[in-house]
Amino acid sequence: MAKKARSAKKTEFKPSPRKSSSRDDRTLAQLSQLAESVVRAANARRDPHLDIPSRTLSNVRYSPRKRIIEMGKNTNRRQLFNLHQAKSFMQTMLVASGCKTLIDQGKTTSIRGLYYLLKHTIEGTREETFNDQAECDPVIEDIEVTVNALREELHLYAQKKGDMVGEIVLVDNGDEIDCSRMGSGGYGIPSIVEPEVIQFKKCKAKFVLHVEKDTVWQRFNEDKFWRKYHCILTHGGGQPPRGVRRLLYRLHNELKLPVYCLLDNDPWGYYIYSVIKQGSINLAYESRRMAIPDAKFLGLRSKDFERCGLSPSVKIDLTDTDRKRAMQIAKYPWFANKKPWQREIKRLLDNGFKLEVEALISKDISYVTEVYAPQRLKDKDWLD
Amino acid sequence: MAKKARSAKKTEFKPSPRKSSSRDDRTLAQLSQLAESVVRAANARRDPHLDIPSRTLSNVRYSPRKRIIEMGKNTNRRQLFNLHQAKSFMQTMLVASGCKTLIDQGKTTSIRGLYYLLKHTIEGTREETFNDQAECDPVIEDIEVTVNALREELHLYAQKKGDMVGEIVLVDNGDEIDCSRMGSGGYGIPSIVEPEVIQFKKCKAKFVLHVEKDTVWQRFNEDKFWRKYHCILTHGGGQPPRGVRRLLYRLHNELKLPVYCLLDNDPWGYYIYSVIKQGSINLAYESRRMAIPDAKFLGLRSKDFERCGLSPSVKIDLTDTDRKRAMQIAKYPWFANKKPWQREIKRLLDNGFKLEVEALISKDISYVTEVYAPQRLKDKDWLD
Repeated sequence: MAKKARSAKKTEFKPSPRKSSSRDDRTLAQLSQLAESVVRAANARRDPHLDIPSRTLSNVRYSPRKRIIEMGKNTNRRQLFNLHQAKSFMQTMLVASGCKTLIDQGKTTSIRGLYYLLKHTIEGTREETFNDQAECDPVIEDIEVTVNALREELHLYAQKKGDMVGEIVLVDNGDEIDCSRMGSGGYGIPSIVEPEVIQFKKCKAKFVLHVEKDTVWQRFNEDKFWRKYHCILTHGGGQPPRGVRRLLYRLHNELKLPVYCLLDNDPWGYYIYSVIKQGSINLAYESRRMAIPDAKFLGLRSKDFERCGLSPSVKIDLTDTDRKRAMQIAKYPWFANKKPWQREIKRLLDNGFKLEVEALISKDISYVTEVYAPQRLKDKDWLD
Repeated sequence: MAKKARSAKKTEFKPSPRKSSSRDDRTLAQLSQLAESVVRAANARRDPHLDIPSRTLSNVRYSPRKRIIEMGKNTNRRQLFNLHQAKSFMQTMLVASGCKTLIDQGKTTSIRGLYYLLKHTIEGTREETFNDQAECDPVIEDIEVTVNALREELHLYAQKKGDMVGEIVLVDNGDEIDCSRMGSGGYGIPSIVEPEVIQFKKCKAKFVLHVEKDTVWQRFNEDKFWRKYHCILTHGGGQPPRGVRRLLYRLHNELKLPVYCLLDNDPWGYYIYSVIKQGSINLAYESRRMAIPDAKFLGLRSKDFERCGLSPSVKIDLTDTDRKRAMQIAKYPWFANKKPWQREIKRLLDNGFKLEVEALISKDISYVTEVYAPQRLKDKDWLD
């Protein structure tokens, strides 16, 4: 136990038995290539540089054929021998080397953890490698796009949010998890759900119902909705974190399960759906392995106030920000040409109010699980 | 499936088979008593009133004997025939009746759900029962203290946050959950963990390690710390929600497991510990069934910067708010007379910086699980 305290000056890495996978091997090869290109340039007495795909809005486009947001082909050159770029060049190589260490050691950490792992005073100077985490995070994204690996493949995890129950048995790090026997708590969806960690073993579910909030999830779980309708029930605690999105993607693509989203009737609900479906504009490069263009929007709908005969008491007035956001979302290329979506958003604006899923409780505690969701699914009444 | 849409005017409740427990019976009896006192007063032509224990700061005190924060005996009278109190009298009875419905139906909901359940326009007026949730939440607390029931016993759940793994097998709603076989995701701690829902079946764990954040929890879980040191590992996503606190309480009191807290070295970390240990000042009435006076503060400590030989790079400057908070916390009655705590907080202020648990990663990715925590536990080196 009594380890000798090690030098605080530089980050040392202890060699440890390596847990490896073919995916890790591929990521490692890509990271090594990055380093080798620098060595090659130095040996040839050329200026070392990196070409990093540009993550600006102008380099993001919607592919109507693939129906996801994609990055274009623009890159930015980052040079070592350029006074304005030398530090960010160093930071980029440092992050790449930190990720290599994680993979070598078969360990994972958070983006904050990586920041601490790499932060130190550069020897012989008073300069820090990173002044704060805000300097480190974009560099992680640079590495993701440059070596074409998801953050999770770089052994970095995000916040852990979201739970799952339902008719599926999976294996997580060797442990068999029967999601139909998880009580009221459920299985906490990890932030790294790559096939090396999570394998699907048996699935009787016919679809996935993804709800916005833990509180709604608890209602569906308590009523054992997933048992009656043979499905998987997930939530992402609001905007779902990467782990939840990636798991939904895998359930959809590997097990061919349709994904239905039950979200609030407000611009935030539309936006959550948009990210699940087409990907996020900021992180366009990950759409390819996270976006689910076939995901359906089950509700709540702007017409539900009338259709369900809700009490005026449950209306919440739209704010100016809501109106602005709604109009922006209406112009998204994947909504712009869809009449049902234009009608949906126009009606929200005409209504002048928004509705939370919880508002359905004013009909009956279990109205959402016994009437609302079953009826919409039976009638195939959703937005695409 | 095709239910007739019901009147939106008032909240109706459908009779349904009742799942009951002795605890539910007790809560129901208390709620009925409340209603009966009003009926009795009306029959006797006296003004109906409620005496509600006062939740003001002046009615909260620290009991050095029980070592928890407690409520005093002051009450406020709420009368029906008083222009200033009539509405809140009505709201109080409405919340009580809503909770009775939930228990009758064997269902639970969120505090937002209850708000929607009870919100409606009062017949013949344009007055709403509640204008917003902020009007409803304090009334729920009123009912809790008046009928002396935890919110969970009223069938109300809070946000669901926090995960658990480790050497314990529990039964959650009839499902057996082996927390030593939960992979990387873990068991999502539900928000209602009362004995009717969760029973402990088998426990090989010797203690509970509670960490502040999911990211630190992931590190401990990945390194299978709980297997090596025979413990239970929990996190509460920052300030732990009620479900996590109540579960820690039950693990501590029913299974006699010591609880060790690994939190950041900053006023927020101190405060989280304080709430776990003594209860929260705002919700003093729940301390009795949530506070764990014997919980230990394992770290991070103000002396860890030197003791662990950390790099200056990991320091985070204290803000003015941090300093103010630290000085307030030093004056808490349960810290005021403890020299080690006074030294701890003084040193934080002298240092002028705070430290996150993640800062230990600058020593080594697994320093916290392989050196820091084992050493402190072995040396019984903690604050009380």
